[in-house]
Amino acid sequence: MEIALDLAKKVKYDVPVAALIIKDNVLISKGTNKVEILEDATAHAELRAIKDASENLSEWRLNNCVLYTTLEPCAMCAGAIINSRISKVIFGAYDLNAGACGSKINLFGDLNKENQTEVIGGIMELEAGKLLKDFFAIRRLNLIIT
Amino acid sequence: MEIALDLAKKVKYDVPVAALIIKDNVLISKGTNKVEILEDATAHAELRAIKDASENLSEWRLNNCVLYTTLEPCAMCAGAIINSRISKVIFGAYDLNAGACGSKINLFGDLNKENQTEVIGGIMELEAGKLLKDFFAIRRLNLIIT
Repeated sequence: MEIALDLAKKVKYDVPVAALIIKDNVLISKGTNKVEILEDATAHAELRAIKDASENLSEWRLNNCVLYTTLEPCAMCAGAIINSRISKVIFGAYDLNAGACGSKINLFGDLNKENQTEVIGGIMELEAGKLLKDFFAIRRLNLIIT
Repeated sequence: MEIALDLAKKVKYDVPVAALIIKDNVLISKGTNKVEILEDATAHAELRAIKDASENLSEWRLNNCVLYTTLEPCAMCAGAIINSRISKVIFGAYDLNAGACGSKINLFGDLNKENQTEVIGGIMELEAGKLLKDFFAIRRLNLIIT
């Protein structure tokens, strides 16, 4: 999670979120949120990390992979995690507005019976949350100034 | 939907699903399911059509766009539809196993209050369903023979 947070701190122009995927203690892929910079609503950190992991492993089934992300995945990313059969998700800050791991909705229930993705939230939550709060505070300030 | 079905019929190696996006009566993008051929669990028809539409419009916000898809979107694709602010979804066959527009779960409820995506299902349902049934029948037959 420390590596993911360091990566998230380097995000420019977009909401600072980063994700990475580990398999057998090896880093398979990294992704950061690039919705604004790429003009692509699907370019969330988790989705980009999943795409890259599949490319690097030449395999869409990511069994036995662990995804770390600094923010609770949204429905799109949670759906991608289920579709790609990732075994475990570890996230930092909870997202009360759009989190799909229990905060807003929980996709890791009925949809996920077959593959049983394990989900752990709130790891380094304070640091992950502070990064987001600081980003939105600066954005609000810029909106007031400009 | 006829154009989407014709597109889906051309899918090779993957589950035959196709999607397209229309804005102001103009075809903005097309996508087919390429999970197996690209080894990418995120390469569903809808997600690929959304990515292409954003690229073609140089804009991640797809307000006033209509997405046609031959199969009810899964959670990942429904999440992407919500994230990209698509105004209307029209789908063919219902997906009782993974459909996120009411069949298995309904993401177009609480998550979607702000943007209010309209969803219409079951358009050309018989043709869309037959295409999928034929595909899975042939796949089962191949599994028996090989």
